[in-house]
Amino acid sequence: MNLFRPDIARIDGYTPGEQPQESSWIKLNTNENPYPPSPAVVEAIRDASSGPLNLYPDPLVRRFCTRVGDLFGIDPDCVLPANGSDENLTIAMRSFVDAGQQVTFPYPSYTLYETLADLQGARHQRLPLRDDWQWDPRQAETLVADSKLVFVPNPNSPSGNCWSDPLLTSLVPPAGVLVVDEAYGDFRDEPLSSGLLQHERGSQIVLTRTLSKSYSLAGIRFGYALAQPELIAGMRKVKDSYNCNALSIAAATAALQDQEWMLRNVERIRATRDRLVAALRDTGFDTVDSQTNFIWASHPTGHHRRIFDQLKNRKILVRYMHFSNTSGDAARDGLRITVGTDEQVDRFVDVLRSIVVA
Amino acid sequence: MNLFRPDIARIDGYTPGEQPQESSWIKLNTNENPYPPSPAVVEAIRDASSGPLNLYPDPLVRRFCTRVGDLFGIDPDCVLPANGSDENLTIAMRSFVDAGQQVTFPYPSYTLYETLADLQGARHQRLPLRDDWQWDPRQAETLVADSKLVFVPNPNSPSGNCWSDPLLTSLVPPAGVLVVDEAYGDFRDEPLSSGLLQHERGSQIVLTRTLSKSYSLAGIRFGYALAQPELIAGMRKVKDSYNCNALSIAAATAALQDQEWMLRNVERIRATRDRLVAALRDTGFDTVDSQTNFIWASHPTGHHRRIFDQLKNRKILVRYMHFSNTSGDAARDGLRITVGTDEQVDRFVDVLRSIVVA
Repeated sequence: MNLFRPDIARIDGYTPGEQPQESSWIKLNTNENPYPPSPAVVEAIRDASSGPLNLYPDPLVRRFCTRVGDLFGIDPDCVLPANGSDENLTIAMRSFVDAGQQVTFPYPSYTLYETLADLQGARHQRLPLRDDWQWDPRQAETLVADSKLVFVPNPNSPSGNCWSDPLLTSLVPPAGVLVVDEAYGDFRDEPLSSGLLQHERGSQIVLTRTLSKSYSLAGIRFGYALAQPELIAGMRKVKDSYNCNALSIAAATAALQDQEWMLRNVERIRATRDRLVAALRDTGFDTVDSQTNFIWASHPTGHHRRIFDQLKNRKILVRYMHFSNTSGDAARDGLRITVGTDEQVDRFVDVLRSIVVA
Repeated sequence: MNLFRPDIARIDGYTPGEQPQESSWIKLNTNENPYPPSPAVVEAIRDASSGPLNLYPDPLVRRFCTRVGDLFGIDPDCVLPANGSDENLTIAMRSFVDAGQQVTFPYPSYTLYETLADLQGARHQRLPLRDDWQWDPRQAETLVADSKLVFVPNPNSPSGNCWSDPLLTSLVPPAGVLVVDEAYGDFRDEPLSSGLLQHERGSQIVLTRTLSKSYSLAGIRFGYALAQPELIAGMRKVKDSYNCNALSIAAATAALQDQEWMLRNVERIRATRDRLVAALRDTGFDTVDSQTNFIWASHPTGHHRRIFDQLKNRKILVRYMHFSNTSGDAARDGLRITVGTDEQVDRFVDVLRSIVVA
């Protein structure tokens, strides 16, 4: 007797990147920030650890919402904090999409969107990205037309490229919602804003963000969504009442306060990114211009799986990714390499050269 | 244009108990433990605060699962950690119930079950509890027969009574799952076990537990489910990859380690509970025999709402609850009063006496 919903029974579930718990690895596989969070974050956690942990936290996390409101010049009612950005993606799916309805996302992009659609019993269709990582606008219009929800990461993963606001707003479904997943937004050339919400279709747009990447806080699971208050109020019904905990709230609020720390790390990562790109190209790799903290790299030999394995043998983890072909698109694979510290990247490049030359 | 799923648009969502963030209140409304968590917990959080918060936590939370396995003599693969027990209730709903299928739970019990069924687009039916807080076995058999999922809190909230294992297993649906919600299980006369999983229908049973109550950790959001490995593996597909954070994992693991601390606080609360019950009866209230950290109390005058308001005017929060009538059952209301410290309870009783006499 299979007790699970058929949609659950038939899927494998999402496979996250490997997370070895020993510190002997060079981890360039899950786009973590190589630098520690602000000392103010550590201090805030220590303070909170002797606070009233026996009591429930504020279910609306108002302290954090006010801080976000101040930072981006928006109403705190436009903010929905979550247990990591993934939770807000789940909440969006459960808020807007009934079983059998259509969900669309670029492909290749974040593979979780497809899993979330499967979990909800939704149909999903991939908007193919061409070799230049752009979509065909006419194809997009057709696919978006009957979608209840469209996900688009901006910058995209695994490619690292950005799309312009007009391109993004062209993906708002006529009777649905566009989620712009800005997990890597702080690494862009342009600073993050909430301008899309003021667009004439802005009442159908949700922006999702995370403190995992630019704020060096993957360990505390904290993200937030921005949208018009009507959307946030509805999404709030779907979330668990106390989805953020007293410690992560304290940490996230302190992290947001220390913009200088975050921006300095972003600058360091962008500088290292340039070095990494130069070295990859020098080793014969093709790379996509990245506005993120990772690089999509492919080698003319096509031996990506082999290179991945040999790096792993040397305790260096990158992400090997293979994307099957969609209609109008070819299969492709490659390596997604997180920008680490200069030292990590130097070591990676040394080992890589020995592998690629060998 | 309503962008939400009709199921979301039509509901109000779950309303959690009030969580004033000022410390001047006597909070006897959300069944928190009045005592702080173990000093080992605070220490563990402080250690984790200077750990690698820039990295993702272990998605499987193996360290905690091993600890639970040791404590209850079960395989760590039988354990599913979650961001609070509520998350495991949500995961169960999303794992086992398709839209339109039937969910059953005793009524009055935890009002979240109904909200979760609504969010999933499931049909739900209430198994009425009589004035003695027992169900009619024949009615139960009929309602359970076509259920995909049955929730039953043991001990129950708001009444605080327990049901025997044979009564619980009689609620396992022929082709579905029984979730026994043991949020308050540590306050029972009998110590918690995982015996139900060894029952002949045990492969259709999920036990859910939380560290919010007995372990004084409502603030860190940590719960876990126990079930046979096949059920846990399927439920794992539904959860967000990184649903528990590095700080809450550290706190929960340390809390579980210090059984002595937890058990001592449980003993204090049970002793205070006896005093509270005596005082309530002395003030003319009817109470249910409680195996939890709260008391369900009703007064012959029926002035529960007024008593609640007057307590609140004096900065004492209890929970006023009103349950509408179901077929075969009368409407009822009353006060659910959390067992605080002796001092809090003394103050509560003083104020209550002045209100009830007045």
